[in-house]
Amino acid sequence: MTPPRFAFTIAATDGAARRGTIALRRGTIRTPAFMPVGTAATVKAMRPAEVRASGADIILGNTYHLMLRPTAERIARLGGLHKFMGWEHPILTDSGGYQVMSLGSLTKITEEGVTFASHRDGSKHAVTPERSIEIQRLLGSDIVMAFDELVALPGTHEAVASAMRRSMRWAKRSRDGFDSGGAHAEASAIFGIQQGGLDEALRGESAAALTEIGFDGYAIGGLAVGEGQAAMLGVLDFACAQLPADRPRYLMGVGKPDDIVGAVLRGVDMFDCVLPTRSGRTGQAFTRDGPINLRNAKFVEDQAPLDGECPCPVCATASRAYLSHLVRSDEILGAMLMTEHNVWFYETLMADLRGAIGEGRVKVFAAKFLARYSSLSP
Amino acid sequence: MTPPRFAFTIAATDGAARRGTIALRRGTIRTPAFMPVGTAATVKAMRPAEVRASGADIILGNTYHLMLRPTAERIARLGGLHKFMGWEHPILTDSGGYQVMSLGSLTKITEEGVTFASHRDGSKHAVTPERSIEIQRLLGSDIVMAFDELVALPGTHEAVASAMRRSMRWAKRSRDGFDSGGAHAEASAIFGIQQGGLDEALRGESAAALTEIGFDGYAIGGLAVGEGQAAMLGVLDFACAQLPADRPRYLMGVGKPDDIVGAVLRGVDMFDCVLPTRSGRTGQAFTRDGPINLRNAKFVEDQAPLDGECPCPVCATASRAYLSHLVRSDEILGAMLMTEHNVWFYETLMADLRGAIGEGRVKVFAAKFLARYSSLSP
Repeated sequence: MTPPRFAFTIAATDGAARRGTIALRRGTIRTPAFMPVGTAATVKAMRPAEVRASGADIILGNTYHLMLRPTAERIARLGGLHKFMGWEHPILTDSGGYQVMSLGSLTKITEEGVTFASHRDGSKHAVTPERSIEIQRLLGSDIVMAFDELVALPGTHEAVASAMRRSMRWAKRSRDGFDSGGAHAEASAIFGIQQGGLDEALRGESAAALTEIGFDGYAIGGLAVGEGQAAMLGVLDFACAQLPADRPRYLMGVGKPDDIVGAVLRGVDMFDCVLPTRSGRTGQAFTRDGPINLRNAKFVEDQAPLDGECPCPVCATASRAYLSHLVRSDEILGAMLMTEHNVWFYETLMADLRGAIGEGRVKVFAAKFLARYSSLSP
Repeated sequence: MTPPRFAFTIAATDGAARRGTIALRRGTIRTPAFMPVGTAATVKAMRPAEVRASGADIILGNTYHLMLRPTAERIARLGGLHKFMGWEHPILTDSGGYQVMSLGSLTKITEEGVTFASHRDGSKHAVTPERSIEIQRLLGSDIVMAFDELVALPGTHEAVASAMRRSMRWAKRSRDGFDSGGAHAEASAIFGIQQGGLDEALRGESAAALTEIGFDGYAIGGLAVGEGQAAMLGVLDFACAQLPADRPRYLMGVGKPDDIVGAVLRGVDMFDCVLPTRSGRTGQAFTRDGPINLRNAKFVEDQAPLDGECPCPVCATASRAYLSHLVRSDEILGAMLMTEHNVWFYETLMADLRGAIGEGRVKVFAAKFLARYSSLSP
């Protein structure tokens, strides 16, 4: 039997939270899912087998970084991103829009698309919705994201509305570009991205526009850009309900462990964030009691593991004292072990959330988790 | 049965080359052996299990780096270096002498010992033969090295002779310090270090002095410091024969793969070198056809593995094209995979040499290896 192109199945609900699966050609994603970010064809400091062992069913690849180096055309000639980086499971690619506007030096934005200068070498590039989809096709992405326009918050109502409406026109062009992709459209899925800032009416208008176009799944974009957790969760209170219940909801770029717990309670199914990997390279480890920074002097002779309840290989073998030494010595092994632990922490949290939803106790689980976990940085 | 403190057994000889084992409390070393360098309580960019999987029976720890950070006393309080870094197999520690004089800012050298300023923070430290042995005891080293004086080559005959003779006096003090170590002397081994530059008579005098003191094994020091391969092998032609045949011979800090092959043919049993690990962080990979640099543009779409005959996990999964991308992108995974391959390359070479000695064909193996391998950097 040929695996389905895309099949989202909700196995259990618990309040607004849902547990399910997304079946794709290259594998099945257990939801709620966390996608480690593999920016430049690597989840930084982790081998693919180590990413998989953490429990990750899918990773995210960044179109912006890959289009600049080694380029989508080169990856296509080499057999696609999965083969290139040795990850045979699903990959979701973003559209590049966010990074073009946040990392690149934006030179022009028109109805047609955006032109920008690379943050790396200043070279000039153009991306349109059609080109973004083409790049994602060349990469061999399993879940393609529509190309949208990033608006910094807080923005005026008019600016947010205008960018959202342009993003909806671009969503249609993205969908059309995807559908004209032949075999790729037969093998992959495409998600639209809801915009509209913190405004319920604009979010509703965006959801309606996307649903009218029709997508395999729906992302919630434009959050986690400085509005704060309370405002973000406030948007999710209405945004999830505005999107089709029978399609996966993906909250882009989120977030801290407590953000994720709050979003799952509100009906989000998918997440990505650089936090576990980036933190792993700066000495921060996630624990069930909140984040700790291994550069803190109090850990230099602490023989305990990072987290006594963590099932990861790092907590089985390395002490905080050793990790503190590695981090303070800027040793690569420090980044490797801290990243591995952090990704395990996130994936274990997702597994715990799925288990709790399946048993109808997600609110109790969340309350206990949040009571213990402190989001304050050390 | 309690494992022996130290037992060197020669299982086969082939010309001057020997195959054997060194049995220690923490494990058995197959010789000729290559010891990956674990400078700061980590073989850089490798987990202990990955080092072990490459075939390494023993690693080297650097007294100089560890005494500065995290300090020998801290490692002792944390249960010793093996527990600290999660490596349960044998560890050889150098005496610190080489790095004190090459990395530190040497402030004074007297008959008593040396005082120096840390290369890292300028802090002042003193090391004597007795203190070096004490540090190595605190670390829990399995093979302790005598503390000696580094002399830069080329030096005057007088300077080389004078430094060698002081090193022999320090060797006696190192031995005495070791013997007064109680339980540590019962559990560990100590090696003396032959000096004398390129001079056969001085090397002979040094070997006689060390043998008179008596050590578990004998290192050949003061080579691979710029004299060139021919001169180095020329010294080994007489130096190996000057040292006791029934004790392991350890050529310190050597070297390139072709250096090692030449030295094994002359009777050397143990090696250490930063080359496979350091090269792994700068884009150089060892192959049976010589070293290649993955920054070279010719590899960007090369789908072949680093070395088609290599049994390592990297060559099983990653293309030169992918590694080229990682190296050019300064990705940590690039350093991880390149280092892993390089250490496997060295350990596989040692296994091949051991096999060839056992079958009495080491000269044929060496000739074939050297004919194919180019030591020219790309």
